[in-house]
Amino acid sequence: MFETAELGAKISREEFDQAAEGLRIELLTLQGKLRDADFPVLVLFAGVDGAGKSENVNLINSWLDPHWIATHAYEDPTQEERERPRFWRYWRDLPKKGQLGLFLSGWYSQPILDRVYRRTGSAEFDYRLDHIANFERTLTDDGALILKFWMHLDKEGQKKRLKELAADPLQSWRVGKRDWRNYKRYGKFIEAAEHAIRRTDNGTSRWIIIDGTDERYRSLTMMRALRDALAARLKESARKPRKAAEPKLSGTVSVLQGLDMTQVLADPDYERELKEQQARLALLAQKARARGVSTVALFEGWDAAGKGGAIRRLAAGLDARQWQVVPVAAPTDEERARHYLWRFWRHLPRDGHMLIYDRSWYGRVLVERVEGFAKPAEWKRAYAEINNFEDQLLHHGMALAKFWIHITPEEQYKRFQARDSVAYKKWKLTEEDWRNRAKWGAYEAAVHEMVERTSGMAAPWILVEGNDKNFARVKIIRTLADRLEQRLARP
Amino acid sequence: MFETAELGAKISREEFDQAAEGLRIELLTLQGKLRDADFPVLVLFAGVDGAGKSENVNLINSWLDPHWIATHAYEDPTQEERERPRFWRYWRDLPKKGQLGLFLSGWYSQPILDRVYRRTGSAEFDYRLDHIANFERTLTDDGALILKFWMHLDKEGQKKRLKELAADPLQSWRVGKRDWRNYKRYGKFIEAAEHAIRRTDNGTSRWIIIDGTDERYRSLTMMRALRDALAARLKESARKPRKAAEPKLSGTVSVLQGLDMTQVLADPDYERELKEQQARLALLAQKARARGVSTVALFEGWDAAGKGGAIRRLAAGLDARQWQVVPVAAPTDEERARHYLWRFWRHLPRDGHMLIYDRSWYGRVLVERVEGFAKPAEWKRAYAEINNFEDQLLHHGMALAKFWIHITPEEQYKRFQARDSVAYKKWKLTEEDWRNRAKWGAYEAAVHEMVERTSGMAAPWILVEGNDKNFARVKIIRTLADRLEQRLARP
Repeated sequence: MFETAELGAKISREEFDQAAEGLRIELLTLQGKLRDADFPVLVLFAGVDGAGKSENVNLINSWLDPHWIATHAYEDPTQEERERPRFWRYWRDLPKKGQLGLFLSGWYSQPILDRVYRRTGSAEFDYRLDHIANFERTLTDDGALILKFWMHLDKEGQKKRLKELAADPLQSWRVGKRDWRNYKRYGKFIEAAEHAIRRTDNGTSRWIIIDGTDERYRSLTMMRALRDALAARLKESARKPRKAAEPKLSGTVSVLQGLDMTQVLADPDYERELKEQQARLALLAQKARARGVSTVALFEGWDAAGKGGAIRRLAAGLDARQWQVVPVAAPTDEERARHYLWRFWRHLPRDGHMLIYDRSWYGRVLVERVEGFAKPAEWKRAYAEINNFEDQLLHHGMALAKFWIHITPEEQYKRFQARDSVAYKKWKLTEEDWRNRAKWGAYEAAVHEMVERTSGMAAPWILVEGNDKNFARVKIIRTLADRLEQRLARP
Repeated sequence: MFETAELGAKISREEFDQAAEGLRIELLTLQGKLRDADFPVLVLFAGVDGAGKSENVNLINSWLDPHWIATHAYEDPTQEERERPRFWRYWRDLPKKGQLGLFLSGWYSQPILDRVYRRTGSAEFDYRLDHIANFERTLTDDGALILKFWMHLDKEGQKKRLKELAADPLQSWRVGKRDWRNYKRYGKFIEAAEHAIRRTDNGTSRWIIIDGTDERYRSLTMMRALRDALAARLKESARKPRKAAEPKLSGTVSVLQGLDMTQVLADPDYERELKEQQARLALLAQKARARGVSTVALFEGWDAAGKGGAIRRLAAGLDARQWQVVPVAAPTDEERARHYLWRFWRHLPRDGHMLIYDRSWYGRVLVERVEGFAKPAEWKRAYAEINNFEDQLLHHGMALAKFWIHITPEEQYKRFQARDSVAYKKWKLTEEDWRNRAKWGAYEAAVHEMVERTSGMAAPWILVEGNDKNFARVKIIRTLADRLEQRLARP
């Protein structure tokens, strides 16, 4: 795989100078266009130490306008990062649309090194690589341009380069003990790298392998690849106009129709059971805190289904330091400038904490689908994106509970009327609520498909019969406690 | 001071139930109005352990709509927090306009405990309290409503309460060793608290002292105080319409006129000196990184003064992992929803890193002043806010350099013309640039006042003669290196 990169290509100073000026102007022009485009660019540098990864990052920063470039280099995860799923730190640093993110020691670094030093077996290595491929596909599906440069040196070349760098007082900081230690494992490193590249090289986020021996060659080659990719992507994005999806959903048979909506819980039983389950949840939450287990509970449901009231009861027995509600409404402009999952990643709770999403990432396959805010291709792939996202939460050790609170159209009508007549509840009811109501059938079909496609064993949907608030509240708190208990039973 | 809180006030269950329902409706109604208001609410709870601080936080969360409430409790600072000035974590958590932030173990907690355990002397204690007062004033000046509740218990009462809590399986987590250790120092604690309250109790962010002995009394009293403060502040905010300032600035004599704008640096000297200073800065930056010293460099100047080019040269010799540019343009909606300094706080670099602001917080006293985006009261108090902000950066150990790049109107005209004719530079030039040019005199007067009011010994303005780009670039890099060198000479 690396043979072509070891042919010893060189470029003369004259050739370089001649090419560089025009290339730089082309790149600046493309960067100018990019600023108005609706996709971000991620450029990742990996490769052999000493092959010019960070030099190339510097070069991009000095050729282009650094205002719209952010460089991210990763060391050992910080405490705040360790307390979230592994990819949280990369999501946190995603560039906005129109901007360039340069990544050094990014998501490939640790998996490859762990494999080189035999801290992981080959199955775990593949698992992590597939995870990376998933992450990248999620972004490219959304329009991101991802370029991955592998900067290469053969073994002799690396030795020579490390010695040169170490001897230069301005460069010697680039070479540490770690580099020499890695150098000794050159063969294993190349083997792991080759495997990683082969497993993650696909049509939409391709690897570009560059021989790092000659500085001018590697600089020009990288810049040309960047130019070509940018130009192609900008051209493509100019061609494809966004068009809204036509909602073609009708309510036939759905999982919601199987619910027994007549279940009720009389007041005295309610008071008792509510107290019991609140106390049970509070004790479990304390244990979770001590164990560093975090919890994510999300609520979806019809307007006026009682999400807010349920959340309030659920949280009543908990330590206010431990939980937080994130209401999911219209995205802010910082959120709109990124992949739709970004806004959920950013709020993920620290270990031991509980986060309650009132509405959630499922908006993508519910309101955005039905109202045509998301294109069919977007909401169709969202099921897989969501399953993958939730897998990461579970893999980090979180407890996850997903509630759909169901009410009948008749019950909703009654509640809307009631809200309208109580002054301090009036602000809760908007014109939009009435409009959404008209699309009940389409929503019901979307809910059905959502439940069908995103109910894994590990994160099943919990359908809550919500016509009787007492019944719904107790069921929700009990089920959440159950799920947390199950999670705590595992190590 | 605490005598009135020790009178043993009690409220019966009947009285409580009767008052609670109406009060809750009033509060919900006020919260609904608050959502459209243009100020945030910060409610801080401090006081004797066991006096009901976190119970009251829970109560607010259960009475009001928790969607628009965020609760923040602080423990020992995380690594990411330790690497920034002390108040970074509180700035990070500031509620948006229209929302409520509840703070437990907030900014009073550590200063008081440090004093109780004699980790700080009385002078340092006062210093930190004044710092707190400054922080609060910065927010209230901007419209924030701050309520500070001191929940009180006398010594006997605390002992009794801690024992009760420890005996209740649902509450025992609230009482730890730390609480009993603090209890033993009750006298010292009260002494320090009294001092803290007296020094930070002022018209705009008042302390409210509440006896925590009787749960019903403390709950109602707190809720009533919250209601009264909210109602008063909403009423006041409805009364005062925002009006824009009239820019009444004319350019008379200014510090800019004293600059020798004829200074130039010939190309051969430039090449040599640039390389020298870049290398010098690179070596200093490596030392700074190893020492964990962070650097903030900010650039202000006329349009087309050459900020971008200077920044690119400055960064050229640096490790791209270490520095970042933050271009300061129109605020995002998340930024607009908070105090104007928030957007600068959020980007502060970690220890050992370098952040370059292209335009900065000085926009408040420059463009916002001249264009009337900020009211006179707002930009007038901004000088003190900025000085205070920069003091915090310096106190954390950062190196700080502030550059104003000056060019003459004639030179600017020449550059605008040139930009207009080069395709890949064209996007840099906007209509606005031409408009700003027409207000040269007003801007010059604003610059003069800015330099006069914000040039302390520790963070002086560096005025750069920018008509010759060579001269300006070398001066900038040399001066930044000087400042970093000075900083590194100190421990």
